[in-house]
Amino acid sequence: MATAGKVIKCKAAVAWEYGKPLVTEEIEVAPPEADEVRIKIVATALCHTDLYHLFEGMETELFPTILGHESAGIVESVGSSVTEFQPGDKVIPLFINQCRECRFCRSPKTNLCDKGPIGAHDKLAFEKSRITCKGKKVLPFMGIGSFSEYVLMKQIAVAKIDPAAPLDKVCLIGCAISTGFGAAVNTAKVEAGSTCAVFGLGAVGLAAVMGCKFAGAERIIAVDTNPKRAETAKVFGATDFVNPKDQNKPIHQVLAEMTNGGVDYSFECVGNVEVMRSALESCNPGWGVSVIVGWTNRHDFAARPIQLIVGRTWKGSLFGGFKSKDGVPEMVRAYLQKKIKVDEFITHSKTLAQVNEGFELMKSGQRHVYGITPSSLLHCKSYLGLNDKTKSKIVFCFCSSIRTVLNVSSE
Amino acid sequence: MATAGKVIKCKAAVAWEYGKPLVTEEIEVAPPEADEVRIKIVATALCHTDLYHLFEGMETELFPTILGHESAGIVESVGSSVTEFQPGDKVIPLFINQCRECRFCRSPKTNLCDKGPIGAHDKLAFEKSRITCKGKKVLPFMGIGSFSEYVLMKQIAVAKIDPAAPLDKVCLIGCAISTGFGAAVNTAKVEAGSTCAVFGLGAVGLAAVMGCKFAGAERIIAVDTNPKRAETAKVFGATDFVNPKDQNKPIHQVLAEMTNGGVDYSFECVGNVEVMRSALESCNPGWGVSVIVGWTNRHDFAARPIQLIVGRTWKGSLFGGFKSKDGVPEMVRAYLQKKIKVDEFITHSKTLAQVNEGFELMKSGQRHVYGITPSSLLHCKSYLGLNDKTKSKIVFCFCSSIRTVLNVSSE
Ligand SMILES: NC(=O)c1ccc[n+]([C@@H]2O[C@H](COP(=O)([O-])OP(=O)(O)OC[C@H]3O[C@@H](n4cnc5c(N)ncnc54)[C@H](O)[C@@H]3O)[C@@H](O)[C@H]2O)c1
Ligand SMILES: NC(=O)c1ccc[n+]([C@@H]2O[C@H](COP(=O)([O-])OP(=O)(O)OC[C@H]3O[C@@H](n4cnc5c(N)ncnc54)[C@H](O)[C@@H]3O)[C@@H](O)[C@H]2O)c1
Ligand SMILES: [Zn+2]
Ligand SMILES: [Zn+2]
Ligand SMILES: [Zn+2]
Ligand SMILES: [Zn+2]
Repeated sequence: MATAGKVIKCKAAVAWEYGKPLVTEEIEVAPPEADEVRIKIVATALCHTDLYHLFEGMETELFPTILGHESAGIVESVGSSVTEFQPGDKVIPLFINQCRECRFCRSPKTNLCDKGPIGAHDKLAFEKSRITCKGKKVLPFMGIGSFSEYVLMKQIAVAKIDPAAPLDKVCLIGCAISTGFGAAVNTAKVEAGSTCAVFGLGAVGLAAVMGCKFAGAERIIAVDTNPKRAETAKVFGATDFVNPKDQNKPIHQVLAEMTNGGVDYSFECVGNVEVMRSALESCNPGWGVSVIVGWTNRHDFAARPIQLIVGRTWKGSLFGGFKSKDGVPEMVRAYLQKKIKVDEFITHSKTLAQVNEGFELMKSGQRHVYGITPSSLLHCKSYLGLNDKTKSKIVFCFCSSIRTVLNVSSE
Repeated sequence: MATAGKVIKCKAAVAWEYGKPLVTEEIEVAPPEADEVRIKIVATALCHTDLYHLFEGMETELFPTILGHESAGIVESVGSSVTEFQPGDKVIPLFINQCRECRFCRSPKTNLCDKGPIGAHDKLAFEKSRITCKGKKVLPFMGIGSFSEYVLMKQIAVAKIDPAAPLDKVCLIGCAISTGFGAAVNTAKVEAGSTCAVFGLGAVGLAAVMGCKFAGAERIIAVDTNPKRAETAKVFGATDFVNPKDQNKPIHQVLAEMTNGGVDYSFECVGNVEVMRSALESCNPGWGVSVIVGWTNRHDFAARPIQLIVGRTWKGSLFGGFKSKDGVPEMVRAYLQKKIKVDEFITHSKTLAQVNEGFELMKSGQRHVYGITPSSLLHCKSYLGLNDKTKSKIVFCFCSSIRTVLNVSSE
């Protein structure tokens, strides 16, 4: 390609500062080093983890950054030692490496890789970044930074996928769908005939519902504070829906009563330590397995020792336990073979320049909006008011997105 | 027997009040009901859980009680519908039922039983107690109350053992040894060649060390704040010993450095929520399994979500995951066949009347003594002082007991 070996100037949505809307800027993406691949992003979706970093997390230092990590694209050029990829290959960038050589990669028990930190999202990655904007280094979020026309990836963090795959759909396999589905199938290893509960029905939680169904669960109780998610959850296989706000007792008690003592498997797909505790306590004391999928680093999760001593297991799941390079092409194949759903997760399509509206759509299912004018919500006739205490906008709209896909470039 | 069908008057050590020494009293033990067995206790050991209830717990209402739950004895008489036991049988009383009929008993995943609460140690059990002292009902601790010449048990909470078993030794199989050994073998399912860490080297922790060794662990790191436990731990198979007090960094960091990133399995056998966190954090991020065995109900255990999300598993273990009636006779056989150690756990022998000295011996490995004059410790030339703040006695003696066995009756 004409651009190979040269710095590419292109558009990206840059997060200059914690808590502030993204700004579309021209950035410079360096040519790939020997073991790297430069990818033209075709589509990228918004995940709650992007929103967390921008509005909820604690790492206010790791800015400017380019958010986005749930994407798909086409190889533009490759480094001198790369043989696995060629320009034109359809690929999905990965936030976990798979070098296939380290002790983690060689163990069937984990999807971590010893070559670099998860998502390479730290100060060191910042210093090493070869993406610049207005003369400043910009950190690619989770090692990807896909709210951009081009990204630069190590070859051990790229999965080649079936050329038949529609990139504006399968981008979701780069995070949410693999994460939720794998949490059920790989991490919890849900058994046929079992009873499951999924807390939080964003794309991650809905994918967990789909994973439970795929594994043969008999009963899948979907739990969300957004009443509109009841119908959606059924599409993915949920048999029951419970809104904790409609209950006059703690949710774990409600679930215990519905299931003769507790579910076999539960999944926390919210990112709230109180919900993590509820999810654990909703499990059957003798054998219940609860999996933490939701992300927060602001608080400890906690419970009383007896909750585990009686026989429960508390696990966590990163990217659904999938070895990234192996798992993603498999999941894409499963989609093409109609074994898993993907299209049904996508509720909104936007352009890269509309990324801030995407964030608003994600947040509108919550009660608290973080100060950004939710213009895109005015379609909905719900009440929009001002919180007396915090002076922030409060939205009682439940039409929030499941996934918004940003169409960045044409295939 | 001459006593069958009649109330038995006998001696027991009664705990009248939280935090107070036990008092030897005459008690009345009712004859067994249809599904019950009355047992003459031959030997009983002191477990930290007894000490917890008397000095550390929160249930100050559940008094008067007869402590003791790690015991062995001989059937004195049986209820009208009991066919499994006969007077003269050697037995071990169990603090978990095994009815063999309920959904828990029929599941291979748990050792809980639906017939009554664990250890039946609650207000209801208090009301139902058929043991009295000075006209008052006395609660048998954990459904047993073996600091007594006789106990009354449901037949679903009694294990018949090999008549060749020496009761003053195998009483330890009634709690500590099964608990620690099973935590490694049944709950964690330690794999051959793995690296383990055991926090707390009382009888429970040492039994966990023995379980790890039995399962073929290659490296077993024993951790205790009592330096004298270094030698003892080696007897049971430990390859390394670390005293957290000798380290200038957090213990989880020390273990991570010793093991290239963390152990495969860790066990908390102290009953301290901070140690529970350290034990989890000492595990390998990708596949480490940490098991909570120690007991406390005063605080939550806690950690950051990322600690699990990367791939660790947090479990708990009650009675080592053994189905009680099945497991105990097996463990006794294993001892008689010299496959597991028992004698090596016993450091002191006392009479029932000396039970308070037994508690002092257990506590003397800690720095804080709870107000009881530690007369039995004066043998040791260690410093004995008064804590300025709390005015309680501080003992810097590390000659604490592992297990004190009380010889209650002759076989
Ligand atoms: N472990 C991983 O590898 C991984 C990967 C991707 C995302 N995540 C995390 O997974 C979580 C879910 O991501 P998402 O993109 O689906 O988020 P999302 O914001 O789209 O969905 C969250 C859902 O939780 C619901 N919710 C909020 N509070 C609730 C409560 N108290 N009880 C029940 N439901 C409640 C919301 O209404 C919403 O439907 C986030 O924390 C994200 O950071 C983890
Ligand atoms: N889960 C179960 O089924 C079950 C059954 C029996 C006992 N328990 C519990 O197991 C625990 C151990 O019982 P035990 O009888 O062996 O107790 P113990 O008091 O004899 O032994 C505890 C050991 O922990 C050590 N210790 C104290 N603080 C420590 C620290 N910060 N770091 C490392 N080591 C420390 C002490 O020096 C001592 O050697 C207790 O909490 C008991 O209640 C649980
Ligand atoms: Zn994500
Ligand atoms: Zn690797
Ligand atoms: Zn015990
Ligand atoms: Zn049962």
